[in-house]
Amino acid sequence: MTQFNFIIKAKENLARTGIVSTAHGEIRTPAFMPVGTAGTVKGMLPESVAATGSDILLGNTYHLMLRPSAEIVAKLGGLHKFMNWNKPILTDSGGFQVMSLSKLRKITEEGVKFQSHIDGATYNLTPERSIEIQYMLDSNITMVLDECTPYPATRQDAESSMRLSMRWAKRCKDAFVEREGYGLFGIVQGSMYEDLRIESAAALQEIGFDGYAIGGLAVGEGQEIMFEVLDYTVPQLPQDKPRYLMGVGKPSDIVGAVARGVDMFDCVIPTRAGRFGRAYIDHDELNLKNACHTEDPTPVDPTCDCPCCTNYSRAYLNHLFKADEMLGPILLTWHNIRYYQRLMQRIRDAIEAGTFGEFANSFGV
Amino acid sequence: MTQFNFIIKAKENLARTGIVSTAHGEIRTPAFMPVGTAGTVKGMLPESVAATGSDILLGNTYHLMLRPSAEIVAKLGGLHKFMNWNKPILTDSGGFQVMSLSKLRKITEEGVKFQSHIDGATYNLTPERSIEIQYMLDSNITMVLDECTPYPATRQDAESSMRLSMRWAKRCKDAFVEREGYGLFGIVQGSMYEDLRIESAAALQEIGFDGYAIGGLAVGEGQEIMFEVLDYTVPQLPQDKPRYLMGVGKPSDIVGAVARGVDMFDCVIPTRAGRFGRAYIDHDELNLKNACHTEDPTPVDPTCDCPCCTNYSRAYLNHLFKADEMLGPILLTWHNIRYYQRLMQRIRDAIEAGTFGEFANSFGV
Repeated sequence: MTQFNFIIKAKENLARTGIVSTAHGEIRTPAFMPVGTAGTVKGMLPESVAATGSDILLGNTYHLMLRPSAEIVAKLGGLHKFMNWNKPILTDSGGFQVMSLSKLRKITEEGVKFQSHIDGATYNLTPERSIEIQYMLDSNITMVLDECTPYPATRQDAESSMRLSMRWAKRCKDAFVEREGYGLFGIVQGSMYEDLRIESAAALQEIGFDGYAIGGLAVGEGQEIMFEVLDYTVPQLPQDKPRYLMGVGKPSDIVGAVARGVDMFDCVIPTRAGRFGRAYIDHDELNLKNACHTEDPTPVDPTCDCPCCTNYSRAYLNHLFKADEMLGPILLTWHNIRYYQRLMQRIRDAIEAGTFGEFANSFGV
Repeated sequence: MTQFNFIIKAKENLARTGIVSTAHGEIRTPAFMPVGTAGTVKGMLPESVAATGSDILLGNTYHLMLRPSAEIVAKLGGLHKFMNWNKPILTDSGGFQVMSLSKLRKITEEGVKFQSHIDGATYNLTPERSIEIQYMLDSNITMVLDECTPYPATRQDAESSMRLSMRWAKRCKDAFVEREGYGLFGIVQGSMYEDLRIESAAALQEIGFDGYAIGGLAVGEGQEIMFEVLDYTVPQLPQDKPRYLMGVGKPSDIVGAVARGVDMFDCVIPTRAGRFGRAYIDHDELNLKNACHTEDPTPVDPTCDCPCCTNYSRAYLNHLFKADEMLGPILLTWHNIRYYQRLMQRIRDAIEAGTFGEFANSFGV
């Protein structure tokens, strides 16, 4: 069995490129994790996701605990087998979706009680239960349960929320079952307050984790504030552990965060945009539903090697979206994930070549 | 260039197996053509459709003439290029969908005038225009425009409708531009009246076509009556041309029709059923939405070699359909088309081996 570890292969200023090793294989960093909310990256076969260059997927604990349930996934051999994805999986703790999707939620010291948005059934999610669920899912990277501090938050609210998250982080660490090739990540909170972020980073290192996430960003604060928070938070984290910026982001967000020392990312943007007819290309976004594409024989992105760009015209994509054909979302989701993975490859290559500064400049970050 | 032709490799009683050659490749018969209504087999990449063993697709003239229009498809290089399918394509004439989907339609000797079900725009579809559209789409097998006689029909209505279709068939033949590797098929009508079917078959042969379709079946008459019509119609058709039973059908319909001398089939059943959670297996149909599959680790069809059956459990499919995930329709569409193509391969093998009678018996037909 492989130990869960992280090696850094090259650095350029704060940016790093390396490898996270897990029981299910290696993750090249900086890494982008496509989101497979309910045990599937919407519209993609897992072998197609792998073909885009994705080394790891994110699964959502909240969705999977409600349906089909962690118990059923475990009975069927775990999430890798259930969804036919034999590479690494990271699961979130469920906390974020409880806040954004569930009904009648109530947070106490013990945990959070909520009603399912699907059928109204009541659930208790405690730090211990979140860790147990992620264990049953067989997640390679387990995230601690935290309270997602709403934005904006007063200093007082941000402080008490962050400190609750730190107490939960300790309970998560205690509940986590160590296995070779599996890791547990803590999550720095503290809203947009420097001293709270510093306190949170220290509290987590006191507990000790295999990696450190930065939570509570990409919640509407804008890129400038997000980068500011990274500027003072990332240096507080240990050099030798992977750093994960949760829920981020647009291409320029990712490039800018890598420049500030972040190693891992997840975001629904490429998959969601693809389903709605929007394609990412360098420094731009196309809406394939627009009438200007109706007779355009050129590919979505002439520089891209994905099946969408290799085999089809913008006119065909325009037709598929007008006709509400599934193949439209399928092809554009594929392109967008491939675009993101090519971006990550270019980032990794640039860091190794010592040209990342230039590359980041070209993204204006 | 390949000539459009048909060779019969083996016969067993009325059943035949052979090859139709076209400018875009060969079609092994008996053949099942998946339906790619709007320039896509819903939920499938064309390379996946090819991987199921499909040699030819059906495109719908009605849908394509309305959106994106035959002119745009032609400008973009024809339907093969537009949809990235380099194998043979058969297009219907548009007549059937005009009857079933359009609004305010009016049939005259000249043709049919109707309003688009999409935007209400008015169109004229004449025999000449239908042939022109199919030429612009670059269809390998063009179908004549006919009037789809409603069922049930009085003898008088069936007769006048069939005779109109025969006059249109002549106009289609006159309008058809001969090209090497491209063919034109006539369509036998006459409802459930033996003498009208015989008259129609003779009228078409008088005109002369590259293949002969049997239309106006699978319209609610039931398998027994359909087989009766085939029993007296197919022997009226030339031995050396392919015979195509339009819009058929369930597996046992296909096996029974092959036993009566039919070579080609198309039907939305496997694709539509797949989108709604139903899977075809020998002598049965599963509804993957049913609760009995929630924890079932077995594949949809243990005898099947498709990606759905090789990599996933019934429990996973059940989960995907409950969660309304695109991958459910994608996987079951793939399975159902593969099931149909495996059925066709077993039919072809059985005819060559002289065991088709037995095989048909096992389907009760």
